[in-house]
Amino acid sequence: MIRELKRFLIGRPMKTSQLDHERLPKWKALPILSSDALSSVAYGTEAILGVLVAVSASAMWVSLPISLAIVLLLTTLILSYRQIIHAYPGGGGAYVVSKDQLGDKFALIAGASLLVDYTLTVAVSVTAGVAAITSAFPALLEHKVLIAVLLVLVIMVLNLRGVTESATVFSYPTYAFILGLLVLIGAGLFSLRSGHVNFDLSRPHDLAISGITWFVILQAFSSGCSALTGVEAISNATPNFRAPESKNAANTLGILGILLAVLFSGTSLLSYLYHIAPHPNATVLSQVAEQVFGRGGMYYYIQGTTALILVLAANTSFTGFPLLAALMARDGYMPRQFTLRGDRLGYSIGIIALSVAAIVLIVAFGGNTDALIPLYAIGVFLSFTLSQTGMVRRWFRLRDRGWQGKALINGIGAVVSLVVLVIFAVTKFDEGAWVVLLILPVIIFCFLMIHRHYQAIASELRVDIERVHPQQSGNLVIIPVSSISQVVNESLSYAKSLTRPENIICVYIGFDFETIHAFEEKWRRWNPGVRLVSIRSQYRSILRPLFRFIDSAEARVSEGDFVTLLVPEFITRRWWHRILHNQTSLLIKAWALHSRDIIVISVPYRLKH
Amino acid sequence: MIRELKRFLIGRPMKTSQLDHERLPKWKALPILSSDALSSVAYGTEAILGVLVAVSASAMWVSLPISLAIVLLLTTLILSYRQIIHAYPGGGGAYVVSKDQLGDKFALIAGASLLVDYTLTVAVSVTAGVAAITSAFPALLEHKVLIAVLLVLVIMVLNLRGVTESATVFSYPTYAFILGLLVLIGAGLFSLRSGHVNFDLSRPHDLAISGITWFVILQAFSSGCSALTGVEAISNATPNFRAPESKNAANTLGILGILLAVLFSGTSLLSYLYHIAPHPNATVLSQVAEQVFGRGGMYYYIQGTTALILVLAANTSFTGFPLLAALMARDGYMPRQFTLRGDRLGYSIGIIALSVAAIVLIVAFGGNTDALIPLYAIGVFLSFTLSQTGMVRRWFRLRDRGWQGKALINGIGAVVSLVVLVIFAVTKFDEGAWVVLLILPVIIFCFLMIHRHYQAIASELRVDIERVHPQQSGNLVIIPVSSISQVVNESLSYAKSLTRPENIICVYIGFDFETIHAFEEKWRRWNPGVRLVSIRSQYRSILRPLFRFIDSAEARVSEGDFVTLLVPEFITRRWWHRILHNQTSLLIKAWALHSRDIIVISVPYRLKH
Repeated sequence: MIRELKRFLIGRPMKTSQLDHERLPKWKALPILSSDALSSVAYGTEAILGVLVAVSASAMWVSLPISLAIVLLLTTLILSYRQIIHAYPGGGGAYVVSKDQLGDKFALIAGASLLVDYTLTVAVSVTAGVAAITSAFPALLEHKVLIAVLLVLVIMVLNLRGVTESATVFSYPTYAFILGLLVLIGAGLFSLRSGHVNFDLSRPHDLAISGITWFVILQAFSSGCSALTGVEAISNATPNFRAPESKNAANTLGILGILLAVLFSGTSLLSYLYHIAPHPNATVLSQVAEQVFGRGGMYYYIQGTTALILVLAANTSFTGFPLLAALMARDGYMPRQFTLRGDRLGYSIGIIALSVAAIVLIVAFGGNTDALIPLYAIGVFLSFTLSQTGMVRRWFRLRDRGWQGKALINGIGAVVSLVVLVIFAVTKFDEGAWVVLLILPVIIFCFLMIHRHYQAIASELRVDIERVHPQQSGNLVIIPVSSISQVVNESLSYAKSLTRPENIICVYIGFDFETIHAFEEKWRRWNPGVRLVSIRSQYRSILRPLFRFIDSAEARVSEGDFVTLLVPEFITRRWWHRILHNQTSLLIKAWALHSRDIIVISVPYRLKH
Repeated sequence: MIRELKRFLIGRPMKTSQLDHERLPKWKALPILSSDALSSVAYGTEAILGVLVAVSASAMWVSLPISLAIVLLLTTLILSYRQIIHAYPGGGGAYVVSKDQLGDKFALIAGASLLVDYTLTVAVSVTAGVAAITSAFPALLEHKVLIAVLLVLVIMVLNLRGVTESATVFSYPTYAFILGLLVLIGAGLFSLRSGHVNFDLSRPHDLAISGITWFVILQAFSSGCSALTGVEAISNATPNFRAPESKNAANTLGILGILLAVLFSGTSLLSYLYHIAPHPNATVLSQVAEQVFGRGGMYYYIQGTTALILVLAANTSFTGFPLLAALMARDGYMPRQFTLRGDRLGYSIGIIALSVAAIVLIVAFGGNTDALIPLYAIGVFLSFTLSQTGMVRRWFRLRDRGWQGKALINGIGAVVSLVVLVIFAVTKFDEGAWVVLLILPVIIFCFLMIHRHYQAIASELRVDIERVHPQQSGNLVIIPVSSISQVVNESLSYAKSLTRPENIICVYIGFDFETIHAFEEKWRRWNPGVRLVSIRSQYRSILRPLFRFIDSAEARVSEGDFVTLLVPEFITRRWWHRILHNQTSLLIKAWALHSRDIIVISVPYRLKH
């Protein structure tokens, strides 16, 4: 039944040879790979305003210079990542670049922060998507956690089914979202100019008057940087582009940069002009759209496409996380199961692990995006810093034509990312950044322990195929018996098929002399041709006398000979019949495997009743 | 660690030979075997008044004639049970008598109602004991369920430790309780006579005026019959008496009858004279004691001894239930595990099962004794009826000297019990008697199913020792391998110790041709002297191709030959290391035992890291 359900949800298994490697044209790569980056427009401005409004409503204008600074930062990152694309046509994720240029330790830092990030991306994007929905339909507000969890489960099942990231259908929402936002920005600015909206530019624009400190500005800036998450996606996926891969990827990244800059600064500008303040039950984008269009078709269009692109952004993590986990598992830093492809060729364990972790986060944080953002961006900028630093190192090593310029660009990228990272860690420390700073070392420690374990096991199990070969040796088979029955008869037949009767000993454990004598007498009359040893168990334990006998037998056999415990076993027809039988055979098997260096043979006897 | 805890709570295991069979003198048998019966005085009167007060305060006088009727009923039962004692010197529980005289079906009815009763006795007695405590210390009222559950657990552990029922210390509380109640009754009557208490005999004693119906009277009567529970305990335990067993037991039962009659009628009379009405937070007995003595030393003495004797009454069920369960398990009506003696020679499974059931009841009913009483008494009178009827049947069969008189006494006992039973079932139907009437058939059905299962298994497993003997036959050993490692080397050595190399096949399952060729080449170079079969699994499943191979091998071997699956298996040093290894070997073993008629050998390889 479970198999039926699985088949229904996941679909029929696919052959390994069906693994496809479709190459993406630019027009399809752009929407698919940039949904994460573009979707963060939906919460970037909101994050800035959230910090500022806490100080004073009159400080809201500061969001404009902050947005400008973020656009500048974006430009630096885009330029830096274009160079990674050209340097790593095979895909330049932070883990790969760090491993290549900075060594395993830094790669693990990058890997850990990326895995944490992918998880947070799912949680943040899905909750933000739900916020777009609940802004439009406030009645759903009380169910937001449930809706978010269901969305994660749906994305999980779709990924276990093996949705190829390249399905054309996934490119529509992104274009629809871009179009919607461009219309919104245009219409919003036009309305102001045509005087339909009352706004006042004479508001004070003075830091002193606004009562705002530099610390708050830095806080707001780092919050806004969450809009930059996702720009690395294209550089990770360079090999998926059509040839010439690097050139196409770099151009796509350029277009993404321009789009992101326009949409982000446009949204920030509008929200300033329309005096939008963050509201717990309606997103900033929703308020802007409502003011510009009213609650009409365009409003719902904006909310709908926002929700869609956010869910799509979550979906990109479902490609990134399992792939990175598989890579790290292959390097021996994560459990090997992450390398296994499921029925539909996806890395099922990674997909499920990501879903579980994201759901735990969503439930723990009660479905509030804002609370998760500080956790989110710190890992992003950590991996930015590492990959840019790795690139600087690369240029210094290669010293090819024009390396100084390239090193400069990546150097600026690295320094800026590092600065943002530090700003983040400091200003957001109390708001949860400490969690990430605490959790990353723990994760890295786990990676190292796992690696050490695999290394140790590998050297322990290694066989020198020139010198080590299987040896033939003796064998003593011990069979615990409790009665003369078909089960015992079957077990004895089997033992006789393995070895000579003189290598077989049956052990009977009785609680008093009368039963023991009676059994010995019956055995003598049956005469199965195998020795019987009877033991009286004064304390009514079966296991202890049996294992004491096994120990003494092991001491008696010649060096290198095997001692085998043959356990006759009932298989009941219905599982609940088991409670009607002493599960002694299961106990014996469990204890034998747990406590003794003994080989265990299960001879099952399938009951018909 | 669990073993340490167990050893601490339960004590060191004891030898079977330490099972003792101490005989009880009368002075010790009386308190120990009658605690159940005498303790019911603590709730008998209360149960009557509870019914009457619901109609009208002026109806309370009806409790006097009802108490008189119950004392008459008690006399009948005592006389009937004295005859059982003489007829069954080996112990005449309702199950034994019914099985002997009425057949298995009736024995099962008696057994089921007794098991239900023992469980209810524990729940009722413990909650009543807690009520005595909380009457004295109202602050504990809110914790009554917790206190009751803890008491049950303490009694359970004491019984698992193997408290012998005959410990002298258990006789003190009963005598102390009897003494306390006699003083209470005496002092109470004396106070009235000396005019210290104001009471008015001119209250109306007219049924019509009290507005009471016969149905209510019957309800009150049947509620009060709960005071009679436990009178059968002595007849069950006849063999525990000193010689002459029957005579001593019969005399002890007589004394019990007189004591019970005096204490019960005395308490009923006092509560009437002192105008006591049931109160949710203070028992009737507590109110009487408070009025007679004030809240002084004697009051707390009465409450303390009441609580003690009630807990002791619960303790007697811990002897009765496991013993009866063991008896029925030996007859094949209950799971065989109930016959096993634990470390301290008690029937551990029965003791634990009883505790769990009682705790479930206490929690489900929120610790309210009254709610449980209707459930309780119906089973008691059902087993009374069955054993008395069995005795009548016995006299008709034996027809020894004076059999008519004996049959008459048991006949009256049977009829009266049946009448009470019917009154109970009718008047208490709505209050929960229907639960018992519903549950008994279910339990009996389970007994019958269990019995049928054991019968079927026994005939299936029976061996004709003259004709059936173990046969020697061939054996094919299949070893799934995934690499060339110490684990595989060890497994091959073991296989070679069992059978000739030509009877061994190694199976390698690869996902693509390259890995398969590489492995085959490495195997060839290693040359362990055993055939290798490689299978390509297009769907990346290990189990399916392996089992398809096993099926084809089974089809090829000669009739009667065995096919063995030898599974090399890691044993990791720490249990949590397991998550770092694919648990393929466990899966293979589980699937093999579940789905195939194949013998499985586990060759454990104990990892050092």
